[in-house]
Amino acid sequence: MPLSPATREKLETVSTATITTALFKRGFRIQMIQDVYPLDPAKPNMVGEAFTLRYIPAREDLNPITVFNDPEHPQRSAVERDCPPGAVFVIDSRKDARAASAGSILVSRLMMRGVAGIVTDGGFRDAAEIAKLAIPAFHHRPAAPTNLTLHHAIETNVPIACGDAPVFPGDVIVGDGDGCVVIPAHLADEIAAEAVEMTAYEDFATEKVLEGRSIRGLYPATDPQSKIDFEAWRKKKGR
Amino acid sequence: MPLSPATREKLETVSTATITTALFKRGFRIQMIQDVYPLDPAKPNMVGEAFTLRYIPAREDLNPITVFNDPEHPQRSAVERDCPPGAVFVIDSRKDARAASAGSILVSRLMMRGVAGIVTDGGFRDAAEIAKLAIPAFHHRPAAPTNLTLHHAIETNVPIACGDAPVFPGDVIVGDGDGCVVIPAHLADEIAAEAVEMTAYEDFATEKVLEGRSIRGLYPATDPQSKIDFEAWRKKKGR
Amino acid sequence: MPLSPATREKLETVSTATITTALFKRGFRIQMIQDVYPLDPAKPNMVGEAFTLRYIPAREDLNPITVFNDPEHPQRSAVERDCPPGAVFVIDSRKDARAASAGSILVSRLMMRGVAGIVTDGGFRDAAEIAKLAIPAFHHRPAAPTNLTLHHAIETNVPIACGDAPVFPGDVIVGDGDGCVVIPAHLADEIAAEAVEMTAYEDFATEKVLEGRSIRGLYPATDPQSKIDFEAWRKKKGR
Amino acid sequence: MPLSPATREKLETVSTATITTALFKRGFRIQMIQDVYPLDPAKPNMVGEAFTLRYIPAREDLNPITVFNDPEHPQRSAVERDCPPGAVFVIDSRKDARAASAGSILVSRLMMRGVAGIVTDGGFRDAAEIAKLAIPAFHHRPAAPTNLTLHHAIETNVPIACGDAPVFPGDVIVGDGDGCVVIPAHLADEIAAEAVEMTAYEDFATEKVLEGRSIRGLYPATDPQSKIDFEAWRKKKGR
Amino acid sequence: MPLSPATREKLETVSTATITTALFKRGFRIQMIQDVYPLDPAKPNMVGEAFTLRYIPAREDLNPITVFNDPEHPQRSAVERDCPPGAVFVIDSRKDARAASAGSILVSRLMMRGVAGIVTDGGFRDAAEIAKLAIPAFHHRPAAPTNLTLHHAIETNVPIACGDAPVFPGDVIVGDGDGCVVIPAHLADEIAAEAVEMTAYEDFATEKVLEGRSIRGLYPATDPQSKIDFEAWRKKKGR
Amino acid sequence: MPLSPATREKLETVSTATITTALFKRGFRIQMIQDVYPLDPAKPNMVGEAFTLRYIPAREDLNPITVFNDPEHPQRSAVERDCPPGAVFVIDSRKDARAASAGSILVSRLMMRGVAGIVTDGGFRDAAEIAKLAIPAFHHRPAAPTNLTLHHAIETNVPIACGDAPVFPGDVIVGDGDGCVVIPAHLADEIAAEAVEMTAYEDFATEKVLEGRSIRGLYPATDPQSKIDFEAWRKKKGR
Repeated sequence: MPLSPATREKLETVSTATITTALFKRGFRIQMIQDVYPLDPAKPNMVGEAFTLRYIPAREDLNPITVFNDPEHPQRSAVERDCPPGAVFVIDSRKDARAASAGSILVSRLMMRGVAGIVTDGGFRDAAEIAKLAIPAFHHRPAAPTNLTLHHAIETNVPIACGDAPVFPGDVIVGDGDGCVVIPAHLADEIAAEAVEMTAYEDFATEKVLEGRSIRGLYPATDPQSKIDFEAWRKKKGR
Repeated sequence: MPLSPATREKLETVSTATITTALFKRGFRIQMIQDVYPLDPAKPNMVGEAFTLRYIPAREDLNPITVFNDPEHPQRSAVERDCPPGAVFVIDSRKDARAASAGSILVSRLMMRGVAGIVTDGGFRDAAEIAKLAIPAFHHRPAAPTNLTLHHAIETNVPIACGDAPVFPGDVIVGDGDGCVVIPAHLADEIAAEAVEMTAYEDFATEKVLEGRSIRGLYPATDPQSKIDFEAWRKKKGR
Repeated sequence: MPLSPATREKLETVSTATITTALFKRGFRIQMIQDVYPLDPAKPNMVGEAFTLRYIPAREDLNPITVFNDPEHPQRSAVERDCPPGAVFVIDSRKDARAASAGSILVSRLMMRGVAGIVTDGGFRDAAEIAKLAIPAFHHRPAAPTNLTLHHAIETNVPIACGDAPVFPGDVIVGDGDGCVVIPAHLADEIAAEAVEMTAYEDFATEKVLEGRSIRGLYPATDPQSKIDFEAWRKKKGR
Repeated sequence: MPLSPATREKLETVSTATITTALFKRGFRIQMIQDVYPLDPAKPNMVGEAFTLRYIPAREDLNPITVFNDPEHPQRSAVERDCPPGAVFVIDSRKDARAASAGSILVSRLMMRGVAGIVTDGGFRDAAEIAKLAIPAFHHRPAAPTNLTLHHAIETNVPIACGDAPVFPGDVIVGDGDGCVVIPAHLADEIAAEAVEMTAYEDFATEKVLEGRSIRGLYPATDPQSKIDFEAWRKKKGR
Repeated sequence: MPLSPATREKLETVSTATITTALFKRGFRIQMIQDVYPLDPAKPNMVGEAFTLRYIPAREDLNPITVFNDPEHPQRSAVERDCPPGAVFVIDSRKDARAASAGSILVSRLMMRGVAGIVTDGGFRDAAEIAKLAIPAFHHRPAAPTNLTLHHAIETNVPIACGDAPVFPGDVIVGDGDGCVVIPAHLADEIAAEAVEMTAYEDFATEKVLEGRSIRGLYPATDPQSKIDFEAWRKKKGR
Repeated sequence: MPLSPATREKLETVSTATITTALFKRGFRIQMIQDVYPLDPAKPNMVGEAFTLRYIPAREDLNPITVFNDPEHPQRSAVERDCPPGAVFVIDSRKDARAASAGSILVSRLMMRGVAGIVTDGGFRDAAEIAKLAIPAFHHRPAAPTNLTLHHAIETNVPIACGDAPVFPGDVIVGDGDGCVVIPAHLADEIAAEAVEMTAYEDFATEKVLEGRSIRGLYPATDPQSKIDFEAWRKKKGR
């Protein structure tokens, strides 16, 4: 069930707040990747299917600096080859930002390969450089030390934990100023559709509230007049 | 003992650092709301009397999405009606930012109603939107999931905990780049007066230090000459 | 083994990420001061030898506001006299940012005295003011309450803990957007030299990656052609 | 809907593990008071309806040692008069065990008044003494300092948070070696009934497993033979 | 490289403290599973090769109570069939003890199947029951709620994190009153041999210290006489 | 101001709870060493003057296993020679129990030298062995890895932090089931005297409460009859 261009486009226009509410209505309560932040809050939404990397704690004998000489090192082959264009690269760093999950050269390469974004529940090194790249990136906090210090790359594209959320390969990740949410793959289309509708109403409600209207009957739309006004607004706005 | 316009005006010109020192001199050590940050650090001071909202952990059967249909839901009636203009809306979220304390539509409504600001020891959803509003807002970190996920609104305008500080309705909240401080209501006038005096001296001392003067005898003013110079400076500056 | 001007200059041009890798190659894994951030991320690198201040928890009877009347109070004499120009003032605040490690007047005085920077694993008060000063400063988060609330200044220029890293007086501190690293004094020259070389290669690799080149054989330089290209690039760039 | 003697008796024979599973089947996921432990693990189950005490952070001027001279101090009147016999006294200490929630004299008085147990998400002082009393008590860890240091008693018998669980007055608390669970009042009878049934089966399954039987088909009872054997076992055991 | 009976026997007689020192000498610093405790501290050492189970956060739609009807559910098939006799069952619960990693029936079955022990960096439900079983078990703290609440079983016998230590299938786990240590499989024989030697000396040194001897020259054995006395002691003790 | 035998004797009969209340009355709020526990809760009170050891994070090049060959290593010389008989050995481990503060051989030597007890805000290795020794010991949790892994011993008998409390050499440490409290040296006599009086009254009140008496007027003794009864009780008990 690959992410359709139409659904991707929709998800680029809605917020993680709206998406988590749509998920909440379906019984999903822990799909938010907790405590991660955009390195550059000014970027547009990050949207893509999850391609995952799993780290475990580094064992010293297995993680000398020379491991990167091996092109099949899981982190490097993922960056160079395996993570598909359009995907979001999601890293399970066990919420440990004492060492880096990745740095600016690897993130640059992901960007050049057309990857849609990157998120770790740990931290990136060269954070200021990454923030300036066109690719959106999310982490907990900057982390200068090389990943070899604490992270051993085990495998890619398996189900992982990221920021206390479950992430399965192919789940759809959306990131904005509030962080990143994980939409189960089979729900991406319907969540996107519903979120677009919800967003239209929220934009309408926001406009009315900023004009001085009460939230009573407006948010939520318990007053039938709210729905009538909304329909008129949609027509006017072409939404 | 409502907050007088004169005291409010004074508190708009002094820092939380200065206020906490004035409180420290009176034996108050835990009046700082710990670990909250302004969504927009560029805003002027937030000042107002506390109007409080108390959350407890959400029980699933009591918190379906439909609860907001009830206009008397404590969060909604507080936003729409009960929190007075000029007040600061203070939310006890038990320092839990895994779900939102509120979002941009409610904060917009508070702003339109003339509320002076909002602070939670949890997090706001739509954080980037809220940062752009004219109303100052403080939280621990962004939190996209709806409050229903983890927060059950119990009651308003009772004494609460916020960021490990005690907050009584009517206490005066001041927020700046360092966070938010809680001034016990009965001390607001004297703390404001003292803080204005302290601030004048601190501004003088800062100016002198930036001109190259030693802090010895200047900060604190143990050298009588410092007081003489300060008086001259005040006259010149009209403070 | 004072920090030579040449080494200082080199360290101003390399990142903490690169330095931690050079340290990792020599078996040093915990030299990063964890969880501290620049108050102004736009500043250039902070570089200098560590001059330290050690706090223990404040005992109430020993920390009335009047202690600052004593010019020999360790925090004040350090700021006014003992911390040498060119040094970095490093404070052991036991990772406790509930009260301030210092405020803007003291940091201003350090700046005027030519101190190279300041870092605490706690927090600064007047954080917004300090961010505007020319001196680089790093902390965990803003902290308005006076240091007397929780910190008792014991002594200066002894070995300390800062952000879970060991800091010996004279160690060389480098700070950038990722935080601060502690280079053992006897290694400063060789680390600086190696980091400059590494940085040249990283800049070359970054440029190539942004031109679309694969990281295979390039990063690390396992393909001999990478080294040839790098040498050509260096000549062209004059590095 | 007071707790019936029959339901109380049932809950004295089932575990918090079994109860949380029965709650999970009904969609309740956060009814466990997290991170609290029995002071005496050898005691039988604690069962009773919640009577609550709410603390907020202590303000120094409101919490001198003399406040206990007032018999209407909320903690004291609750212990002496308001908490009913048979109830469990549940304290919201904001998960802060740096100061005590109560000590052995108050817990002794609760015991003498017939209160069924006590739980705080903070800590008790005189913990070793309390452990020796006949009344079951649960806390996070011992905490010697008087509650006045950090806890200000605000009110009793309101909904509270305790260990990240919601507790409404009248909810039924059950405590055992795994900690304490909160059963919503209206579900107490059906949860108790179901838990007794589940416990019978679990005891049967445990016996069989300890005799060497496979868990396949037995736990859960997907093999019809398991149910047949269970019925025979029940008859034999008179359960 | 399966664990030989001789090495197992040796490891049953040495402490995790001694083993971690032997590992430290070889450059291994993070092989201790942090913050786990024996449910019954009176049991002898737990020793066995790691068989692992990996949990990720539970997604609600994938974790109804009915999943256990599937005999191939990874947790159940591991317990019933896959975890070999003599092994230690090691669970990656992401240090999250808010829900159980397993309960007494499954642990009983592991015991009956000859498994050597079990450790999770989360918690067990029915902790008091498990403590009474003959099989050693280690966890962070009791956790009543069913694993389905927060843990989704993904796969078995892959490398995992447990308590911030890396665990590869086949690594040798040793547990005692201080917790559990992970010995890389290829080092088990030499670590066991060295630890037995170290233990003999430590027992000798302890005996001498308790007789009143100074640790100078004795611990470590920098005085040649200590080695002479030790050799005599070994002969006498037959070690 | 050495600890007099009379004061030591008094402190052996009073609880840390009572002492913290006596300190609270004098304005001391953070003298409790937070989150430390007796390894053997059955031991009598630990009492003695603080002799301190300060650790900072270990730097790998300074902490090979061979450092213990130097008899002047601060930890070793403190244990062997410097910590006086009758003192309590207090270790600043920065609340980090990932590596040991000390092990059973060193604690045995302290015991043989007549040291009164030991406390660390980290952890001990060989915890089960230490628990069996006659010397009382307090820590946060067991910690097998050698101290060299994370702790570098810097100096002895300087003011330190321990469990968020300030500890000055010569301060009087008292430990019981609730943990350890630090009495400023100059207050030891008066606190001991007051605590003995308080304890007499608390014992009286406990006895009365266990006989069924109300706490009203009894605890605290606001009813004059309570004081009359207490005097009679003291005479009868010879206290």
